[in-house]
Amino acid sequence: MDLSSKIRDIKDFPMEGIIFRDITTLLKDPEYMVEAIDRMVENLKKFDFDYVIGAESRGFLFGMPVAYAMKKGFIPIRKKGKLPAETVSTKYSLEYGEAEIEIHKDAIKKGTKVVIIDDLIATGGTAKAAAELVESLGGKVMAFEFLIELENLNGRDLLDGYAVESIIKY
Amino acid sequence: MDLSSKIRDIKDFPMEGIIFRDITTLLKDPEYMVEAIDRMVENLKKFDFDYVIGAESRGFLFGMPVAYAMKKGFIPIRKKGKLPAETVSTKYSLEYGEAEIEIHKDAIKKGTKVVIIDDLIATGGTAKAAAELVESLGGKVMAFEFLIELENLNGRDLLDGYAVESIIKY
Repeated sequence: MDLSSKIRDIKDFPMEGIIFRDITTLLKDPEYMVEAIDRMVENLKKFDFDYVIGAESRGFLFGMPVAYAMKKGFIPIRKKGKLPAETVSTKYSLEYGEAEIEIHKDAIKKGTKVVIIDDLIATGGTAKAAAELVESLGGKVMAFEFLIELENLNGRDLLDGYAVESIIKY
Repeated sequence: MDLSSKIRDIKDFPMEGIIFRDITTLLKDPEYMVEAIDRMVENLKKFDFDYVIGAESRGFLFGMPVAYAMKKGFIPIRKKGKLPAETVSTKYSLEYGEAEIEIHKDAIKKGTKVVIIDDLIATGGTAKAAAELVESLGGKVMAFEFLIELENLNGRDLLDGYAVESIIKY
């Protein structure tokens, strides 16, 4: 099954010159969506971990069904100000501007093993920031898993030293 | 299994006088998380529908695993400006201020049957706005499903005429 056939290319979104890889066409097709989740699950079986982490918003889309299918707990990373209990946060650079994300302080203990899931890796900035949050609390990132990898942006280099899995490569 | 035992109450979030029902403690426990999804699935079996709709961000957390488990397509509703293709949008009132959400125009055709899932129903404003988006494209909302229902806010009244299911009631 060619999962990339269900990814829609949208030109000039969110700005001129960018080809946006639209996953909503894959999510809408039950056969392809289930296959995408099942392949993520298959890739992750070789890692020893207790929790799946997904970052708001699109990391939620893949993180939760993978956690459900593998019977692992799910821990959300959210944009600043959304999580109700005590948090640790980190700022990181985006192509234009800056973002701040956070995680509940009591979500991770020393030695907690997690995998981090997202829909797409571009430059890797969000993924790296997510790993820093986990590690600042003593947790261990056993692997990253992405549906889509934009290889020419070299996000994998920023995650040097980590296991990085992806399903669809551009 | 008492799912409510895994919901954490946070006082005065996001503002003084509010008790915030924190679902992250439930999501983190695999046994309770899987049970929550399975109960949502069980509730939805009696409805005839083709797609699960979840609204950004927390609707993604429950919508996707339910869609995965039931082998249905998933359609996201997002905050204004996030969806890359042509959209229809609607504004609605929040307790403080206003929000605008949208859906891809080609996601719904005349007669498309959907269920709308979210983590929580309070006043019902978001749920009602989501139904309006679906119906503006000719779709039919067969049911709403929420993990948590805040009964004293009467969100169910705003959804009069629809089937409304919830798992944990406060």
